[in-house]
Amino acid sequence: MARTGRRAGASGSRQAILDAARAAFAERGYDAATVRDIARRAGVDPALVHHFHGTKEQLFAAAMQLPVDPAVAIPALLAPGVDGLGERLVRFFLGLCEAGGGRSPFLALLRGAASHERSAAMLREFITRAVLGRIAASLHAPDAKLRATLAGSQLVGLAMVRYVVRVEPLASADHDTIVAALAPTIQRYLTADLR
Amino acid sequence: MARTGRRAGASGSRQAILDAARAAFAERGYDAATVRDIARRAGVDPALVHHFHGTKEQLFAAAMQLPVDPAVAIPALLAPGVDGLGERLVRFFLGLCEAGGGRSPFLALLRGAASHERSAAMLREFITRAVLGRIAASLHAPDAKLRATLAGSQLVGLAMVRYVVRVEPLASADHDTIVAALAPTIQRYLTADLR
Repeated sequence: MARTGRRAGASGSRQAILDAARAAFAERGYDAATVRDIARRAGVDPALVHHFHGTKEQLFAAAMQLPVDPAVAIPALLAPGVDGLGERLVRFFLGLCEAGGGRSPFLALLRGAASHERSAAMLREFITRAVLGRIAASLHAPDAKLRATLAGSQLVGLAMVRYVVRVEPLASADHDTIVAALAPTIQRYLTADLR
Repeated sequence: MARTGRRAGASGSRQAILDAARAAFAERGYDAATVRDIARRAGVDPALVHHFHGTKEQLFAAAMQLPVDPAVAIPALLAPGVDGLGERLVRFFLGLCEAGGGRSPFLALLRGAASHERSAAMLREFITRAVLGRIAASLHAPDAKLRATLAGSQLVGLAMVRYVVRVEPLASADHDTIVAALAPTIQRYLTADLR
């Protein structure tokens, strides 16, 4: 009995923390939301937030039901070096958009960001820190942040045209066709002379 | 008196047609909406719709408060040929997004399309016919439609990252920097070997 009770409590706390995190991120944005505030809203100790969900970034990914942890996924894409980075990013992004079938959590986040300023701020701050920051840091170029946002613009546009607005024939194109077209674009934005 | 009365009537009909057009496009989509149905909703003769607003495409542009008529703007971009087409499209698109300051009608349409399926269908059908169809027709290539949607994906992504989600430094980059980065991408999608 005691054991069952403890399990239900843990599961309840875990869920309460995710609910509190969604509310805090939506209200305050990614940067201003704190683990302390999220713990207070959930009625738990901040240590329990870290115990269940790790860092603030991991908590965000869990609260937004993202299928990957950027702290693991982005360094894995960058590890082999810049050769082929464009193709690895395009294939990773196609997987991200197609995770969960028609109900990709990433696409839901993108749709929300298009119509709600607070969702846009949340997505902007998270992407800047968790995704673009890591890619930019690996490039060792003075304009690395601009390069990372240019690559992001092509990937976000692919998501909008292929999955959200669904314009043919891009909506039905196979992965290899998309990689052949987009990988050189991403590679150029990240590594070539842009003047 | 008669003249003033006639003017008020014409102005009233013009506005009633625009309101009816917005409702018809939103309900039925761009393709299924007919000038006959829009005239009926507005309580006017279909000939008056054509008299005030020209073609269905021009009526759509007026109803959505687009700052340009695609039947004029797109052929003007294509007329000088494929040389420099990438740069002309990027500069035109920046102007479209920045028309009306922070209240660009095009960005409003894009935000709506991200969150509402009917708006997405309307934008998809209009863009396919009025914009991509014209660009594809000028390319004389078997995969011209795919090329046009690829170019569209980079431009839509620019709009999302720069104007809607506003990720720096792309949000504040000047036009020449953006043209230097994006024009070769658009040019390649439209004219180069993509295998």
